[in-house]
Amino acid sequence: MYSFKELSAEFARRFDTPHFPGHPKTLYEANNYFLALGGKRIRPVMCLMGNELFDEIHADAWQVATAIELFHNFTLIHDDIMDAAPLRRGLETVHYKYGTNTALLAGDVMLVVAYEYLNKISSSYIKPIINIFSKTAKEVCEGQQLDMDFEKLTAVSLNDYLQMIELKTSVLLAASLHMGAVIGGAGEGNCNHLSEFGKNLGIAFQVQDDYLDAFGNPEKVGKTVGGDIKQNKKTFLLLHALETANTQQKEELQQLLLQNTDDKVERVLKIFHDCNVDEWAKQLKQQYLEKALYHLEEIAVLSARKKPLLELAGFLIQRDY
Amino acid sequence: MYSFKELSAEFARRFDTPHFPGHPKTLYEANNYFLALGGKRIRPVMCLMGNELFDEIHADAWQVATAIELFHNFTLIHDDIMDAAPLRRGLETVHYKYGTNTALLAGDVMLVVAYEYLNKISSSYIKPIINIFSKTAKEVCEGQQLDMDFEKLTAVSLNDYLQMIELKTSVLLAASLHMGAVIGGAGEGNCNHLSEFGKNLGIAFQVQDDYLDAFGNPEKVGKTVGGDIKQNKKTFLLLHALETANTQQKEELQQLLLQNTDDKVERVLKIFHDCNVDEWAKQLKQQYLEKALYHLEEIAVLSARKKPLLELAGFLIQRDY
Repeated sequence: MYSFKELSAEFARRFDTPHFPGHPKTLYEANNYFLALGGKRIRPVMCLMGNELFDEIHADAWQVATAIELFHNFTLIHDDIMDAAPLRRGLETVHYKYGTNTALLAGDVMLVVAYEYLNKISSSYIKPIINIFSKTAKEVCEGQQLDMDFEKLTAVSLNDYLQMIELKTSVLLAASLHMGAVIGGAGEGNCNHLSEFGKNLGIAFQVQDDYLDAFGNPEKVGKTVGGDIKQNKKTFLLLHALETANTQQKEELQQLLLQNTDDKVERVLKIFHDCNVDEWAKQLKQQYLEKALYHLEEIAVLSARKKPLLELAGFLIQRDY
Repeated sequence: MYSFKELSAEFARRFDTPHFPGHPKTLYEANNYFLALGGKRIRPVMCLMGNELFDEIHADAWQVATAIELFHNFTLIHDDIMDAAPLRRGLETVHYKYGTNTALLAGDVMLVVAYEYLNKISSSYIKPIINIFSKTAKEVCEGQQLDMDFEKLTAVSLNDYLQMIELKTSVLLAASLHMGAVIGGAGEGNCNHLSEFGKNLGIAFQVQDDYLDAFGNPEKVGKTVGGDIKQNKKTFLLLHALETANTQQKEELQQLLLQNTDDKVERVLKIFHDCNVDEWAKQLKQQYLEKALYHLEEIAVLSARKKPLLELAGFLIQRDY
């Protein structure tokens, strides 16, 4: 068994190889540039861990892990275009550096290369793997569309937001584990529990992300807080506040969404506090984490094998701020 | 054996079915809208013909044909974004009607669904089929990138242009036939000849397209001529003219490229005539057509089976204008 850290290091080492041809340079340089920006490579490692939960890591798991990481990077390149984002990991996004058209094509070709890696695995499970991969890819696109739709709406229910987060973020975490498990020879029941572990962990992570943006310690989070509030981003916090605030608080919140005064973050945070949104969010995160851990518990393998996944949960979901 | 017309009608009938889920409507409506714009569906029919050249049409050929048509439509949706094209087949492009972000996602999801269709075919040849498909998909992206690169260059050699056309257009025609042939059980030699038939036919078609835009009979072509000239598009004609014109003609041509006067088309056409570009283009088209037919000839099956492909060549490459 390898630890989460060991698998991360080994994946990073193996992933650091050319994934694209040299010509035309005007296209593939953009792909190489983006991959060189780095990333935590959590999803491919989850695929490896999904495999190792049931059996020794098979060579095919590295191919699928590579496909997953390329797919994830494809979505980031295209998302950055859609969000008109100038920066990614502190450096220029692909469309800023190489133009929107090349970024569009670089994303397209990265998705194709992801499928090329999938096509290298054993025929014995290539079909279920491509099935899971493609279903998930569609769902991620659907999540991104819903996210864009919600930006234009004034009222979004917490339930609709949750569905969007599941599609945009959680399903890929779940699928990464699931595909690894299929390679590891897991049965359907175990695969389902593992997927649910990944899905609920993803939601807990998103709740935490929303929480930290509002209530995090700037020194520990590594960025100024209130970014989501300034951008009127729909978050678990804002949607819950809108659903539970009294008439006066609701009116004030809706007024605040229409303006960009210096005290906006402070005043929104006060309403969040008054509505107990912070406590609610902590509990919500805890609920999803527990649901995730319940499904991990239910997987029928020796509990010692689950250690790296518990480690992963601890890495993603922190308790100290 | 089915004729080209019969296969076209049957494919159109089968393709007219929902390819996307109903939700979210904001995404999939864009996909359905674009597919409803229609098209000649030549590529999927070429896949069916590639199969039938060697054996009865297998159910899998319809899946691959569907994947090919979806892939082709994905490229059109994204190309329209890159070209900022307002119209496609006389109606609004996806990004004009639904916005660029939705068009981007609609294209992405269409590519994923294409792979879903590929994943339905028999395990016995799924790997070579996905190999050909993905290699071709990459090449089409490369061709589009080269096309965009060439727009920014003042000098492009005829050879570089030919390579771009091969990637952007011809390889998909060749691959469509090739994938059908693999399903039909063809050997490597026959597959190679069939691919070369498709590739050369594609180039002949592009030469004809460039020719007709300059010298076609507007009534027969169905549009006013000279569109490429007005847009300074690099075509076989312009590149050959620039390579063969004398100093004076070359200077005039380069002057004309910098302006948009009313007599631009007329004056460029005069230089084309003076340089014998029209005759040269007719011969070039004929050369590629003959090369295509040579490779068709070389395929080791009864010549009666080749009739639909000859019909296709006749449909794509016309002689009467």
